[in-house]
Amino acid sequence: MQKIETKSNLSPQSQSTLTAILVIGGAEDKVHGREILHTFFARSGGIDAKIAIIPSASREPVLIGDRYLRIFEEMGAKYVKVLDVRDRDQGNDSNFLEFVEECTGVFMTGGDQLRLCGLLADTPLMDRIIQRVRAKEITLAGTSAGAAVMGYQMIAGGSSGESPNRALVDMAMGLGIIPEVLVDQHFYNRNRLARLLSAISGHPNLLGVGIDEDTCAMFDSDGIIQVMGKGTVTIIDAHHITHTNHSQVHGNESLNIHNLRLHVLCHGDRYDLQHKKPLA
Amino acid sequence: MQKIETKSNLSPQSQSTLTAILVIGGAEDKVHGREILHTFFARSGGIDAKIAIIPSASREPVLIGDRYLRIFEEMGAKYVKVLDVRDRDQGNDSNFLEFVEECTGVFMTGGDQLRLCGLLADTPLMDRIIQRVRAKEITLAGTSAGAAVMGYQMIAGGSSGESPNRALVDMAMGLGIIPEVLVDQHFYNRNRLARLLSAISGHPNLLGVGIDEDTCAMFDSDGIIQVMGKGTVTIIDAHHITHTNHSQVHGNESLNIHNLRLHVLCHGDRYDLQHKKPLA
Repeated sequence: MQKIETKSNLSPQSQSTLTAILVIGGAEDKVHGREILHTFFARSGGIDAKIAIIPSASREPVLIGDRYLRIFEEMGAKYVKVLDVRDRDQGNDSNFLEFVEECTGVFMTGGDQLRLCGLLADTPLMDRIIQRVRAKEITLAGTSAGAAVMGYQMIAGGSSGESPNRALVDMAMGLGIIPEVLVDQHFYNRNRLARLLSAISGHPNLLGVGIDEDTCAMFDSDGIIQVMGKGTVTIIDAHHITHTNHSQVHGNESLNIHNLRLHVLCHGDRYDLQHKKPLA
Repeated sequence: MQKIETKSNLSPQSQSTLTAILVIGGAEDKVHGREILHTFFARSGGIDAKIAIIPSASREPVLIGDRYLRIFEEMGAKYVKVLDVRDRDQGNDSNFLEFVEECTGVFMTGGDQLRLCGLLADTPLMDRIIQRVRAKEITLAGTSAGAAVMGYQMIAGGSSGESPNRALVDMAMGLGIIPEVLVDQHFYNRNRLARLLSAISGHPNLLGVGIDEDTCAMFDSDGIIQVMGKGTVTIIDAHHITHTNHSQVHGNESLNIHNLRLHVLCHGDRYDLQHKKPLA
């Protein structure tokens, strides 16, 4: 007993209170089991959590902010605040900055990822959030547009129903929270594999991560992605590709890519980011 | 000069007259360059070709049979015949069997792959066609439904817009012309990657081959797939997978598959079937 307590003192955070980054594919369960949202709540500290909600991707920030606020309050969070940033000046708001300094979890809602980045990229508010996420002091979650912004490179928009081609996907700068990934969401639900392949052909150094609705790729602080939820997380690993014609084609000319690794992961699966392989 | 002629006598078929199996993703160009159809015509012997058209997948066999007949006649083929098989008894028709005995090319149109297999699988007519294809005596082409039937296993139908799951795809027996492949067509055009992944998770010994519209995977007699046309051919190679939950899940529960190889090939690309890799 003594021994266990000593060990516990050395490593004060148990698995369920370790910080993480939850990248959610949109349309996560908000009514029934709420598994993904509850995991965010737990990883943010549970009833002791101090949660900031950023609804800035949405054109209806009050509505969506309030919805998540109620959910986390229902779970038992005592401190939840909506940081309703609607212009870039508010990215320097002292009340918001003060709250971020003390909070244990930040949740970014869905909407439009270009709007979210336009309002928050390189503001003191977002810079401080990213700093505290990197220091493993807070848990961060983003759903849909809030998921799209995780990488340095971001899919801003695109289409489906075509062979992979450069015109199928619009790229922009993301928030760079997990620099090495390129996220797509509502993945199989909106048939986005062709657009993620098109994007990855131009950025083969990035790891493509396609996340279905009501599904979460949880980037744990130990470098492991844990998958939870109803759908799948698709990993497109281009690190071993031997050829792509990306630099030779234009517009909607078909792309080729040789020797990709592809993993379709589902609930309970784990993926080792460093070694780029699923764990048995 | 003499030397070249001698060599030519030893190997009487030049590249353009070697037989092949053309697996076409549907909606191939029938009006302008007609590259794919012209390649079938050339590989069947050009103006000396004797071409059989099998329109049995279609509910409008006269219309579609006639359309291809005109196309190949316009190209210069002197002998083109529509084998309008509408019941299984006709799979033993002596006139049809006689034509197949002499023909140099067989073209299977689009329509419904279940209808095509239901009418022709295990008939003397189809058995003889397959025998002559295997003996490299005739060139075979199939587009859309005519492409779907190439493997022993066949995708009979399915859906899109969902995470890979067993209910997403309906499997049936194909004609077994290229036993080791599992073909899907109208591939990115109809967002079929999730259904092909779902099918392959249950048949990891097969090579998934997804072919876009106006695109052809030409299986050459030397074991090389040549890609031609506008779109892409996607190869899903499950031979190195380390895990799938296919046997543990049911209905629309999400599938996982770890360690697939994926190749997106386009016009001019070649793929070595035996060694399972694209050629540089």
